[in-house]
Amino acid sequence: MDIATIVGMALGSGLIVTSICLGGFEKLRYFGDLPSVLIVIGGAIASVLVAYPLRAVLQSIKYGMIAIFHKEYSAQATIEQIVSLAETARREGLLALENRMEEINDPFLASGVRMAVDGMSPEVVEAIMNTEIDAVNARHNYGRSVIANYGKYAPAFGMIGTLVGLVLMLAKLDPATIGSGMAVALLTTLYGAIASNLFLLPMADKLGFVNDFELQVMEITLKGVVAIQAGENPRVIRQKLMTYIPPSDRPSEEEEGGA
Amino acid sequence: MDIATIVGMALGSGLIVTSICLGGFEKLRYFGDLPSVLIVIGGAIASVLVAYPLRAVLQSIKYGMIAIFHKEYSAQATIEQIVSLAETARREGLLALENRMEEINDPFLASGVRMAVDGMSPEVVEAIMNTEIDAVNARHNYGRSVIANYGKYAPAFGMIGTLVGLVLMLAKLDPATIGSGMAVALLTTLYGAIASNLFLLPMADKLGFVNDFELQVMEITLKGVVAIQAGENPRVIRQKLMTYIPPSDRPSEEEEGGA
Amino acid sequence: MDIATIVGMALGSGLIVTSICLGGFEKLRYFGDLPSVLIVIGGAIASVLVAYPLRAVLQSIKYGMIAIFHKEYSAQATIEQIVSLAETARREGLLALENRMEEINDPFLASGVRMAVDGMSPEVVEAIMNTEIDAVNARHNYGRSVIANYGKYAPAFGMIGTLVGLVLMLAKLDPATIGSGMAVALLTTLYGAIASNLFLLPMADKLGFVNDFELQVMEITLKGVVAIQAGENPRVIRQKLMTYIPPSDRPSEEEEGGA
Amino acid sequence: MDIATIVGMALGSGLIVTSICLGGFEKLRYFGDLPSVLIVIGGAIASVLVAYPLRAVLQSIKYGMIAIFHKEYSAQATIEQIVSLAETARREGLLALENRMEEINDPFLASGVRMAVDGMSPEVVEAIMNTEIDAVNARHNYGRSVIANYGKYAPAFGMIGTLVGLVLMLAKLDPATIGSGMAVALLTTLYGAIASNLFLLPMADKLGFVNDFELQVMEITLKGVVAIQAGENPRVIRQKLMTYIPPSDRPSEEEEGGA
Amino acid sequence: MDIATIVGMALGSGLIVTSICLGGFEKLRYFGDLPSVLIVIGGAIASVLVAYPLRAVLQSIKYGMIAIFHKEYSAQATIEQIVSLAETARREGLLALENRMEEINDPFLASGVRMAVDGMSPEVVEAIMNTEIDAVNARHNYGRSVIANYGKYAPAFGMIGTLVGLVLMLAKLDPATIGSGMAVALLTTLYGAIASNLFLLPMADKLGFVNDFELQVMEITLKGVVAIQAGENPRVIRQKLMTYIPPSDRPSEEEEGGA
Repeated sequence: MDIATIVGMALGSGLIVTSICLGGFEKLRYFGDLPSVLIVIGGAIASVLVAYPLRAVLQSIKYGMIAIFHKEYSAQATIEQIVSLAETARREGLLALENRMEEINDPFLASGVRMAVDGMSPEVVEAIMNTEIDAVNARHNYGRSVIANYGKYAPAFGMIGTLVGLVLMLAKLDPATIGSGMAVALLTTLYGAIASNLFLLPMADKLGFVNDFELQVMEITLKGVVAIQAGENPRVIRQKLMTYIPPSDRPSEEEEGGA
Repeated sequence: MDIATIVGMALGSGLIVTSICLGGFEKLRYFGDLPSVLIVIGGAIASVLVAYPLRAVLQSIKYGMIAIFHKEYSAQATIEQIVSLAETARREGLLALENRMEEINDPFLASGVRMAVDGMSPEVVEAIMNTEIDAVNARHNYGRSVIANYGKYAPAFGMIGTLVGLVLMLAKLDPATIGSGMAVALLTTLYGAIASNLFLLPMADKLGFVNDFELQVMEITLKGVVAIQAGENPRVIRQKLMTYIPPSDRPSEEEEGGA
Repeated sequence: MDIATIVGMALGSGLIVTSICLGGFEKLRYFGDLPSVLIVIGGAIASVLVAYPLRAVLQSIKYGMIAIFHKEYSAQATIEQIVSLAETARREGLLALENRMEEINDPFLASGVRMAVDGMSPEVVEAIMNTEIDAVNARHNYGRSVIANYGKYAPAFGMIGTLVGLVLMLAKLDPATIGSGMAVALLTTLYGAIASNLFLLPMADKLGFVNDFELQVMEITLKGVVAIQAGENPRVIRQKLMTYIPPSDRPSEEEEGGA
Repeated sequence: MDIATIVGMALGSGLIVTSICLGGFEKLRYFGDLPSVLIVIGGAIASVLVAYPLRAVLQSIKYGMIAIFHKEYSAQATIEQIVSLAETARREGLLALENRMEEINDPFLASGVRMAVDGMSPEVVEAIMNTEIDAVNARHNYGRSVIANYGKYAPAFGMIGTLVGLVLMLAKLDPATIGSGMAVALLTTLYGAIASNLFLLPMADKLGFVNDFELQVMEITLKGVVAIQAGENPRVIRQKLMTYIPPSDRPSEEEEGGA
Repeated sequence: MDIATIVGMALGSGLIVTSICLGGFEKLRYFGDLPSVLIVIGGAIASVLVAYPLRAVLQSIKYGMIAIFHKEYSAQATIEQIVSLAETARREGLLALENRMEEINDPFLASGVRMAVDGMSPEVVEAIMNTEIDAVNARHNYGRSVIANYGKYAPAFGMIGTLVGLVLMLAKLDPATIGSGMAVALLTTLYGAIASNLFLLPMADKLGFVNDFELQVMEITLKGVVAIQAGENPRVIRQKLMTYIPPSDRPSEEEEGGA
């Protein structure tokens, strides 16, 4: 998935650069203007600083990195591990899961199984796991909204930069420089549009999908732990958990009806 | 229904081409510009790649094809088949449906009847069928949102392309080419507006209707299987399921009140 | 109510025509351009064809007619008839309503009373009538959304037409025709704005009100039939149903508090 | 509160007029153009006529007057009166409220107490009062949406007027009048922007607040009548009803935590 | 957190000023225009006066100050204090909390504990505390919406100011001053964009976060008081309340899964 994010950014940037260079590479110099970059990027950061708690802004880079390099969540593997744990629990009792704790890598599954082994009541286990799911969801939405706000304020500062440039140009109309003056003025609008539409808004969307995947796996884990605790048949557990996976992702996928 | 989609696309494209050619066919050459096409289409794909998981983007073509060539769902035919199955079940018992399995083409109805024949409890059958409905709905909404996002980013890259063109034109104001420069610059905005308003956004809407139709038939199927399992009277089943069909679509439709 | 719709359309059109003719009637000729009309109207139809099932588009004219010539629904008259039926039922029994069936014009009320006379259980009667209300609501919302989509795509094709005109004009900048070229190019934007803001979007709103009125009367009818079946006191029924009518519409309306 | 509405309108209008007159009072004449006023105001009325039932449009003036001269609702005074009534009811019985009916000015409170005195069951009293609250709420929202729609269509007709003016000006480009032509064309956009942003949209918001205040007092009245009927302790009633008043509005308000 | 707000405002303003001064400090004089400032700020205030009750407008400064200098809420400290109170209550009984009342600074916690000590039933305590939470939430949302409306009307008056300036400039096209006329006209749009995007809209967002933090602490306080009253184990209380704190904020935070 990371590949899609990076490929998209590279493709979009490449297309824009190519379309500029069609008439010769020297055209690129019309499009580089450091002050314009600073006013768009810096202005967006400034507005997000006003809008968000300091910590959220400090973690912006981290949120961006997650959008690009996020972990892949495998619902399939999670289900297999839960079914395997359910078989052990059914054959040897819940306490036997104690011996399999170290092979569980996912901390959320581990904490759920730990609580089951410790004999906490199913209602409490479910409540605690649900709270954790809510907290993860809230945290992810936070990160997504920070990136989305950069994407909202970047074009605004693009327009502010263009207005500043237009006023400077108009204040003393010099026929000799009117063209280049307007060209430079438009650069901030261009930068704001690219930053927002190619990078920030799509990254915010991707963070939403990363969140959806992680939450789905957590949901499956929660249902699995509850089922293990209830001593359900491993085969029934697998069947039940598989319904969370879209049919097209299931191992023995077949073509379906109309869509 | 497919016809409407294709007719609409042909009608809209034809109108635009005709309006261009009114002053002579040679005018068309002002409107063909490969780099402009690439920046709008390629840019929209790039942003969707950043926004969506790779798999969603790879299936874009498939989503588009569904909007154009989707299967017709007949609620009427589904109801007839369910009523016929209900008659068999009431006359000869649920197990007698075993012999009619092969005449059921709709895999969703078939799996529901299979579960009923296998003696699964009604609650479980309903739960499993509901999960399948939710999964189909989620999958369809996914496809629709991908197409809708192409429709959102295409005009954005149209504007980016126009800004690039304007900067190039303004950087060295040449009275001889200022007109054609701006004309070319505006082409990307034009392409983005056409791609979004004639193709992408309406196709996303159509995918929504296809989804609504399929879900409605699945809903009817679910209610029908539950009713068969409960041994309800086939006539009552038909009456109940017919309420899902808008009055104007029912066989013996009559003109109604004020609307 | 029809009057408001037609008066509004005539008033708006008249104002626009008058404002054009202020400097002389011959100015009107600058504003008639058949290709521009075709691209706006035809383009909007094309996009709606892509977006909606064919049947919805074929019924567009019907939806528009409803917005203009819709039936008036009288909640007051419906309540009087229900109360009268309730008196008969209470005096002579539910079956006595059989003799009054032919005086009921509203098919929805008739079908409700018919079911009550036939001895169907109150829950079933309520469920069937609710399903009918939902179906009418869905059908109306469908029509409203078709008209609203014309109103959304008309200005989009207005912009597309203007862009086409601008490109044509800019491709060969001819000082002699630049003014008239831009004037013609702007016409599609003007047409789109008028079609959307004076006709289509307000008509979609009006369809919403027509729907609200019809649903309110249906809701009153449903509650009335249920109350008749329960053998409630006609005076109590009237009091209960009157609460659905806004105080300002009630027969003995008095001026109220602050608003 | 009325004062804020009028002060705001005067302040905004004054600022605009002042900014025009800075270079001399004779500049004002550039900004008066009756046809432009007519197309913006008349066009907005035309679109609202198409969108709304005739009655709603006829009451537009009334809705506007409410936004400006609405009654002040005092939750505090209502609570005091309810507590006083509760004391009478507790000391001398519900029937003793009969003697205090004439001192109740608020018709909503009066009708509630009347129903309690008449011995109607608490559930019925609560249901009837809730229905009245819903009706008042629906009526207010109606008025607010009419004003909001004027605010939505006024700028649209501002743009339509400007497009008409531009086409007229461009149709025969006369260097001598191009400036004044565009100036007049822009006036409708200016009128639309002022009508919408200084008058119509804020008035719609204010109608929302008037509604909120009235509904809050009605809600308090409802809870109070129910509590009186239940024979609750007047002191407890006061305490309960006071929770509806924001702490900052309570008689013995103290500065609070962080906000 | 205050620091982020002020740093953001300073950073954004600094960037804009710097980008203006790049070509020489004397350029700044093109950007100072008192009438333009007045029309944007004054116009936004005028519209908010029309839209809001007078009191809300009078408290605008206070709302702005909260966005900048709001108190920090520490969920951690609140939990520690609640756990400590729970230990006392469990060891020495609820009444022993009487002696610890004076060490509770948070008035919301104090009032909750006071009610518990006074022997009010848990349901009543929870209801009263919930009402207070709702009231605080409503008050905060009010303040936030006032600031957000300034942010909505400031750019509208920016556009109105620019239109006024354009009409003045166009009314008598003077080639000598057309540039500076347009420059001044654009200033109001620039002011409106800066006021809205750098100050008002982000401040409204920050008020939302301040509200979220305060409500979260109040929610924790409510759950804590209820748990103390129920005589729950202090350790269990801490565990339960800690779930309200995002894992990343908890004392012994560890790096987590994929996000």
